[in-house]
Amino acid sequence: MRKLSPDTPYLAIDKKLLAKNIERMAKQTTKAGINLRPHVKTHKIPELAKLQLASGAVGITVATIGEAELFSKKGLRDIFIAYPLFVTASKLKRLSKLARRVKLTLAIDSVEGAKALAEGLSGIDVLVEIDSGHHRSGCNPERAGEVALEAKSLGLDPIGVFTFPGHSYKPKGARQAVLDEQKALKEAATAMSKVGIEAKVISSGSTPSATISAESGIKSSKTKSIVNELRPGVYVFNDAQQLELGTCTSREIALWAVATVVSVNGNRMILDSGSKTLGADKAGWATGYGRLLDFPDARIEALSEHHATAVFPKTKTATVGAGRSAGSLPKIGDLIRVAPNHVCNAVNLVDRVYLIEDRKLVGSWKVAARGLNS
Amino acid sequence: MRKLSPDTPYLAIDKKLLAKNIERMAKQTTKAGINLRPHVKTHKIPELAKLQLASGAVGITVATIGEAELFSKKGLRDIFIAYPLFVTASKLKRLSKLARRVKLTLAIDSVEGAKALAEGLSGIDVLVEIDSGHHRSGCNPERAGEVALEAKSLGLDPIGVFTFPGHSYKPKGARQAVLDEQKALKEAATAMSKVGIEAKVISSGSTPSATISAESGIKSSKTKSIVNELRPGVYVFNDAQQLELGTCTSREIALWAVATVVSVNGNRMILDSGSKTLGADKAGWATGYGRLLDFPDARIEALSEHHATAVFPKTKTATVGAGRSAGSLPKIGDLIRVAPNHVCNAVNLVDRVYLIEDRKLVGSWKVAARGLNS
Repeated sequence: MRKLSPDTPYLAIDKKLLAKNIERMAKQTTKAGINLRPHVKTHKIPELAKLQLASGAVGITVATIGEAELFSKKGLRDIFIAYPLFVTASKLKRLSKLARRVKLTLAIDSVEGAKALAEGLSGIDVLVEIDSGHHRSGCNPERAGEVALEAKSLGLDPIGVFTFPGHSYKPKGARQAVLDEQKALKEAATAMSKVGIEAKVISSGSTPSATISAESGIKSSKTKSIVNELRPGVYVFNDAQQLELGTCTSREIALWAVATVVSVNGNRMILDSGSKTLGADKAGWATGYGRLLDFPDARIEALSEHHATAVFPKTKTATVGAGRSAGSLPKIGDLIRVAPNHVCNAVNLVDRVYLIEDRKLVGSWKVAARGLNS
Repeated sequence: MRKLSPDTPYLAIDKKLLAKNIERMAKQTTKAGINLRPHVKTHKIPELAKLQLASGAVGITVATIGEAELFSKKGLRDIFIAYPLFVTASKLKRLSKLARRVKLTLAIDSVEGAKALAEGLSGIDVLVEIDSGHHRSGCNPERAGEVALEAKSLGLDPIGVFTFPGHSYKPKGARQAVLDEQKALKEAATAMSKVGIEAKVISSGSTPSATISAESGIKSSKTKSIVNELRPGVYVFNDAQQLELGTCTSREIALWAVATVVSVNGNRMILDSGSKTLGADKAGWATGYGRLLDFPDARIEALSEHHATAVFPKTKTATVGAGRSAGSLPKIGDLIRVAPNHVCNAVNLVDRVYLIEDRKLVGSWKVAARGLNS
């Protein structure tokens, strides 16, 4: 492995853990009779999107026109841009071209957004984005009918509603987020129905809430979920945030940075994986800037661009230089596995991710859609 | 401009403001008789490094071997890798190649680090990194003599000491950080002197502390700074962090993201510049995730990958759709200038930055060293 290893820091994906994560979500959604349309902004890798499709996903979700263009070029044929684009002439031209190549679905959350789209596109499928409690984009659910009707009158084809229950991203927040998501989507579908438009697609999904959403579709007919499509992204890899939210165990984290210990001062160690490798994300509730997978009690207390300051429990003393005994702390030069807090931002920082299987490096994937923000 | 403009979100550099920032720091250091060796990890752009050299910089500072390789290929000839590398055989090979092409200076903060370097390099200039209060990498100042002596005995050439006074990055922290930096560097130089090694280079520098460091070199001979080299990076652009620290005014910020307002709900507006454009950095003392340069009272209260949630003062009402009067708030589709919190991480997210002059797009630069983390 040493010969093949890239210089640290680099990102590694464990192929078996990845396959398990893909399979688990596919089974959950299939069992619940819900379509899975994974958000590929997490990985930006066409080869990985194809694995998701092979396990039953109906299509992919992307965040930007650039991502849609890239995945389309690589053979993906059913793409939802889950973002309330406000298009210029340039973006309209790109969307028109895309719409000729793939089954494209767009998003609107305002009459203004719909008008801008309608200046260059007609008959295109659109979903109305609603706010289910995350308070980001999305109109209020009761306005979904009005927005859909206006879109229809402009020549667009409103086929449903979607939301991102992003307030699932807090400790014990997922269950309430699912309740909010169900209520808001029902309200929006009803508002559309009142103006004579059927919400055929009712789409939601975040990794913390996806399993609960799916379960609510199967537990009993009384609590039958209104959602018929889920769009989680992070689940393919998981990350330190999902670990701390309780969405996954550390053995379900399929991607990590491989970092070198470059400096030691007592129980404080500096790793060469900083914010330019891991991303600078840190939610208010996070215990640090990522997690050391083999040292559950250590915390990354600070992060610079090329330094992670990892602090180990004070009861142990770092062994510097000399060989270390079993159970002792890392020493200078050791390789350490670091799970980033937010894997989507970490992957977007590298051109290539390395694939391992049974601890051996077996290949790499290009992060083909890296940096395609517009 | 419309015709030439890239699709949002993108990063723009104002060339005149950039030139002023470069000139200001060059003058300050020249006046103080201190060498300027700017940290180019901030911009990763060879053309920009050459502007810094043209205004008097003695060489450049980088953080990684990859950055050194790239800038070397582009003609930069005096490079300090300000990072306590722990080298493998692969990294040693890359460094040996580099050392044949450029005047290369390396960093050590431990005997172990020096030993690893000495396995493949001899006679190379090294600076001992010391901790002056930021508590990241760097040995304790009193250990500088021991580390330098060991390095010398191994065949390396210790020529001085350096520190990063990163604790300047808090409100009113800069002055104390400079006092700490001066004290620690004096202690380290003395420790080296005691073992018969002269610290010819005494290097420090962060953007918040650089001006104070330079001033302490000129105010009177009594407070004569011990520092003879400064390595600030961010000063070329400045950013929202420097603005909130009081290091710069908003008119001295030379780089911003150009974002589109895509969604409006009352006084909450969603811009398409998220953490994949701005970076997710947010210090504990920051008032938000970046600043809107034309709306000083607005704050970015949340940041997703492609959404900035900007909240405007409640006393005003957003004008949606219709034309807006002077002094009113942005509306859907408007372009907004957003200063990132930490410009180094923002630039590292894009392949290209766009250059403007007198509000017109006049060209672009490739971020040639983007992503070179190892």
